[in-house]
Amino acid sequence: MNILYDERVDGVLPATDKHALLQALREQMPDLEILHCQEELKPYECDGLSAYRTTPMLVVLPREIEQVEKLLKICHQQRVPVVPRGAGTGLSGGALPLEKGVLLVMARFNKILEIDPAGRFARVQPGVRNLAISQAAAPHGLYYAPDPSSQIACSIGGNVAENAGGVHCLKYGLTVHNLLKVEMLTVDGERLTLGCNALDSPGFDLLALFTGSEGMLGVITEVTVKLLPKPQSAKVLLAAFDSVEKAGRAVGDIIAAGIIPGGLEMMDNLAIRAAEDFIHAGYPVDAEAILLCELDGVEADVDDDCERVRRVLEQAGATEVRQAKDEAERVRFWAGRKNAFPAVGRLSPDYYCMDGTIPRRELPGVLRAIAELSAEYNLRVANVFHAGDGNMHPLILFDANTPGELDRAEALGGKILELCVKVGGSITGEHGVGREKINQMCAQFSGDELTLFHAVKAAFDPSGLLNPGKNIPTLHRCAEFGAMHVHMGQLPFPELERF
Amino acid sequence: MNILYDERVDGVLPATDKHALLQALREQMPDLEILHCQEELKPYECDGLSAYRTTPMLVVLPREIEQVEKLLKICHQQRVPVVPRGAGTGLSGGALPLEKGVLLVMARFNKILEIDPAGRFARVQPGVRNLAISQAAAPHGLYYAPDPSSQIACSIGGNVAENAGGVHCLKYGLTVHNLLKVEMLTVDGERLTLGCNALDSPGFDLLALFTGSEGMLGVITEVTVKLLPKPQSAKVLLAAFDSVEKAGRAVGDIIAAGIIPGGLEMMDNLAIRAAEDFIHAGYPVDAEAILLCELDGVEADVDDDCERVRRVLEQAGATEVRQAKDEAERVRFWAGRKNAFPAVGRLSPDYYCMDGTIPRRELPGVLRAIAELSAEYNLRVANVFHAGDGNMHPLILFDANTPGELDRAEALGGKILELCVKVGGSITGEHGVGREKINQMCAQFSGDELTLFHAVKAAFDPSGLLNPGKNIPTLHRCAEFGAMHVHMGQLPFPELERF
Repeated sequence: MNILYDERVDGVLPATDKHALLQALREQMPDLEILHCQEELKPYECDGLSAYRTTPMLVVLPREIEQVEKLLKICHQQRVPVVPRGAGTGLSGGALPLEKGVLLVMARFNKILEIDPAGRFARVQPGVRNLAISQAAAPHGLYYAPDPSSQIACSIGGNVAENAGGVHCLKYGLTVHNLLKVEMLTVDGERLTLGCNALDSPGFDLLALFTGSEGMLGVITEVTVKLLPKPQSAKVLLAAFDSVEKAGRAVGDIIAAGIIPGGLEMMDNLAIRAAEDFIHAGYPVDAEAILLCELDGVEADVDDDCERVRRVLEQAGATEVRQAKDEAERVRFWAGRKNAFPAVGRLSPDYYCMDGTIPRRELPGVLRAIAELSAEYNLRVANVFHAGDGNMHPLILFDANTPGELDRAEALGGKILELCVKVGGSITGEHGVGREKINQMCAQFSGDELTLFHAVKAAFDPSGLLNPGKNIPTLHRCAEFGAMHVHMGQLPFPELERF
Repeated sequence: MNILYDERVDGVLPATDKHALLQALREQMPDLEILHCQEELKPYECDGLSAYRTTPMLVVLPREIEQVEKLLKICHQQRVPVVPRGAGTGLSGGALPLEKGVLLVMARFNKILEIDPAGRFARVQPGVRNLAISQAAAPHGLYYAPDPSSQIACSIGGNVAENAGGVHCLKYGLTVHNLLKVEMLTVDGERLTLGCNALDSPGFDLLALFTGSEGMLGVITEVTVKLLPKPQSAKVLLAAFDSVEKAGRAVGDIIAAGIIPGGLEMMDNLAIRAAEDFIHAGYPVDAEAILLCELDGVEADVDDDCERVRRVLEQAGATEVRQAKDEAERVRFWAGRKNAFPAVGRLSPDYYCMDGTIPRRELPGVLRAIAELSAEYNLRVANVFHAGDGNMHPLILFDANTPGELDRAEALGGKILELCVKVGGSITGEHGVGREKINQMCAQFSGDELTLFHAVKAAFDPSGLLNPGKNIPTLHRCAEFGAMHVHMGQLPFPELERF
């Protein structure tokens, strides 16, 4: 079993001759667009997580699946690692290039191949933008439900690779719940189909395994997504609270009442003020926390649900409950939330966005603990998040130019993620592990579990050439990080001694 | 890569000394209940698919996880295959024993460990019956949604192994969508945790991969399932049609109207008459097909949805639409459906139950094609199925004592499943592949895809000792079956030549 990905990334990769590779690619695919000069490569040195940067050896921008197939075969023969990239909007460095690797940009595969209103699916190329699918389906009264905040820009291929979420995932599920089929290429350029157009494919559920695998198992060449009918009506309630814990408890109360809102989001005072200053959404700036709760469906049901949610919120101690009086106000309420990250960005030179998930009932306690950690590390933390599904996005504010603040921010972030794991949650809800959270994976999983991840990786990619150094840490890395998850009171993997 | 599972099953397994194994087990676990005499083994020779029977070498009935752990370690050392079994209600022979293997019965692990009404989950041992979970959750107004027809008897461990479905899975998802966490033992007795108590676990989605893996990847020792609030109200509509195609089309129309019923079931004339004779449910026996459509939720919403569905059904050409006038009639309507299999069993000495899924919009065409195949093979076929999610259960009626009829029934069944694959569906919706449909997997998947399945199996179980010969056919078997899926115009796996 190959567990040496990091070593390769860290410099012991076979010394690939860039020019030999370039020559082979040009000979076999004269039409393939290849970037190889420093100034051309520069824009590709990071994805949405700009704290990590590496200039790739080469960038290729294919337009035909056959080119991708041939590229993978050539790279496989020459033992060159390949990092697939969609729109480059990812927030965990999943598409961070390798100095000795090829960055495979799939953005030009941007055709919508089929919209089937009767079958309620769309078949699209991987570079199609998330929002473009809903726009293409709109004339049929349909849409694609998962809606990451980056949906204007991010591509469906990247969404599949990261199992992207969004405001509506509480009710409509993550990317994995909205897929029918993925066409992919293996590391050596073989075509495979995962899933099918009907309910539940037999054999192992490779479609679910592949979704969220962060480019480590194959390259996506086509995606068939489910489309849903657009809800007839959507209304939003804004509730203010005088403590974040009360707001956290109200979230659980709404779900416990048997209501699944279309979206259920929370912001704390720092985030409320930042958003209000930036967007003028009409938020109550004195509130310690607000909840935004959207109900969608048939008009009569929505009205009914709004009344029930209002009662739950009042019982939970809301100081104010307001329903957006018209569509314009509804859009304004959401604009504040959707622009909360850039709004918080105006408060501080830098911020670090976390992405932990926790069981919903742990919200009050974890919010309190984050406030305590914030005081301890002397760094402000703004909370803006998908409260309904327990997916938190604490934003740690810092100034990278003040010595020590970046380190303190990273340490605080690590503590918050460990807290999430401790209460039975996870270190990432929708942004992925990528390069960013690879050390925290050591806290989340045991050595046996990581070994199994590596074995599954090897089943798809025995050569370890697809996006090495992301998502799954080596046991070596975990030992160095010093945070090996201890299972049943002992390190369960004796081979660790070898390192 | 190991692709020789079948060969092992077919007789080239290492000649295990039954008495040596028995002795080792008794020495190390004096308290472990072991069955080894012919008359004790007999009741375990098949699961719910009684057409396949094999007497196991030994049956073990552990009561402690530590016993299972030790058993797996001993069997692994001695290279003895292990077949895990839950309640033995499976319909595809997934728990069919091996002559030279141990049958590991998990039925005695029947404790409900925790019901958490706030966190909305139940943590249970694998032998707990499906219905027992809902019964235990009922005092909190909660229930576990997936409801296979066998829910009185089948166990949650078996449900996870088969990714079981049921009437309510259209709205509430399959088993995989209602799980939070699985504790398991690997083939060599190591403990692993898959999933977590919060939304979306990082790393590869091994929980989804494991769900439906039919006992080939590990032995389940604990399951944490999601609980849902019981709907306030449930009402059912019965619609009669003068053709199965019209009924099939109405199914798509209901979903296209943006309504997701709690259940949406279809029965054809043969099934209607059989059920009516048996249960006196009040079905219209002259109808060519009926649909049963249940709407559940808040009272006002349900009434509203009933009206909308009624209009859709009338527009789709229903000759009659009736709403169950009270709870007693609702229960009677469902009793007819839930007893349709035994009812059809009264029409014919034998029947063969299929389990294909198809895209919903293909229902009218596939139902017509099944009628044509039925005439061609001169065997009656009754259709009773989860129409809403395109999961068909054609029941082929035959008499095993009439020479040739069993063969004809199997051939007709094979044709129906191939038809499902052809229209973009799959060979199993909820009953699993097991031993029964292993040949049809050759039609469903390419050689590359099967090779990947074997590689994933080897990642969990390199020795191939867990439930060999089920679920994933060897390429050798597919070549012999003569139905190798031809991908891109050629057999993609050159090693096939070797056999």
